[in-house]
Amino acid sequence: MDESLNLVVFSGTDDKLQAVAVLAAGAAALGKPVNLFLQYWALDAFTKAKINRDHGLAPEAGAEGRAAVDALAKAGQAPWAETLRQAKDIGGVDIQACSLSMDLLHLEESDLDPLVDGVEGVTSFYLNAGEGQIVFI
Amino acid sequence: MDESLNLVVFSGTDDKLQAVAVLAAGAAALGKPVNLFLQYWALDAFTKAKINRDHGLAPEAGAEGRAAVDALAKAGQAPWAETLRQAKDIGGVDIQACSLSMDLLHLEESDLDPLVDGVEGVTSFYLNAGEGQIVFI
Amino acid sequence: MDESLNLVVFSGTDDKLQAVAVLAAGAAALGKPVNLFLQYWALDAFTKAKINRDHGLAPEAGAEGRAAVDALAKAGQAPWAETLRQAKDIGGVDIQACSLSMDLLHLEESDLDPLVDGVEGVTSFYLNAGEGQIVFI
Repeated sequence: MDESLNLVVFSGTDDKLQAVAVLAAGAAALGKPVNLFLQYWALDAFTKAKINRDHGLAPEAGAEGRAAVDALAKAGQAPWAETLRQAKDIGGVDIQACSLSMDLLHLEESDLDPLVDGVEGVTSFYLNAGEGQIVFI
Repeated sequence: MDESLNLVVFSGTDDKLQAVAVLAAGAAALGKPVNLFLQYWALDAFTKAKINRDHGLAPEAGAEGRAAVDALAKAGQAPWAETLRQAKDIGGVDIQACSLSMDLLHLEESDLDPLVDGVEGVTSFYLNAGEGQIVFI
Repeated sequence: MDESLNLVVFSGTDDKLQAVAVLAAGAAALGKPVNLFLQYWALDAFTKAKINRDHGLAPEAGAEGRAAVDALAKAGQAPWAETLRQAKDIGGVDIQACSLSMDLLHLEESDLDPLVDGVEGVTSFYLNAGEGQIVFI
């Protein structure tokens, strides 16, 4: 159970990011080191300017899915950013922005929410992942 | 080849679920244990009420992709649910619903198609996966 | 670092394919064998007829994402197909079309861009992957 979990997070909709948060928190609770590598629209969602906004859902969610997600939020479900903060408090969760996506979106490190620990390239991501699992979301 | 394949199935469109079914059936045929963990819109697609419905395609499929999928269905391609049933007959395929997604969608275990073997949390999913591959779809 | 990286490429939008190209090129630069297995809309994007076309972006990109991607292309970013060609020049990158998706899209091997090395079934994909990582994109 000490094998790392390495999530390449590409999608920035709230349903996918909630899935990311649950997978990360669950792995952290089991003592697995967890590395997140934020690309494209996921990175955009981790900016200070946008992290607390509505990021929409996958198109397939439809009106029924939208209503279900809204009802759960009203019932007090923690947003994904909060679940990730809690997972980081457990320890062993590192969140890095992909340097190429930083360029794409014209972002500086100071634009990112403090949840993000730094910026790295894909080579560093692979080297940190080592023999651990790589999962693309 | 006895390493398990553990699919976190998030998407519920028919093209993604067909890909899931083919990956699961291929792995089962090679003797790999296969675990499916159904979340969000994929779980919705495995309910008794909806499993035989049209679940749409990824938006990028477009009209041309829609026509190709429909033509293959008319030519007798097995729907993904049938391919999964056949894979379960080979053995070694276990399908679990994510307990958090059950809550989100207000589902009871009796709402699920018999293809689904049970309901579990993310911790159980990780423990069953062990050192096997984790793939998110 | 000699464990293989095996990407099941399902999505055919330019943002996802750019992510694929970067992950493949980075792994190749580290000496990892890389296998791509092209399905559905990704396979469609690797046809001679379409490889140089605009393949759109994930719906969540929105107008702002579209503008960012266009600006980077204007600034001289290599298209994903070019990045993959360079990765193949490094060596160790093999690209196979999924035989079932070839049937779905009514494609012959001669319809595919020379980047694609051949056509295979899911069993061959698993056997080539061996104990290496499997990632679905």
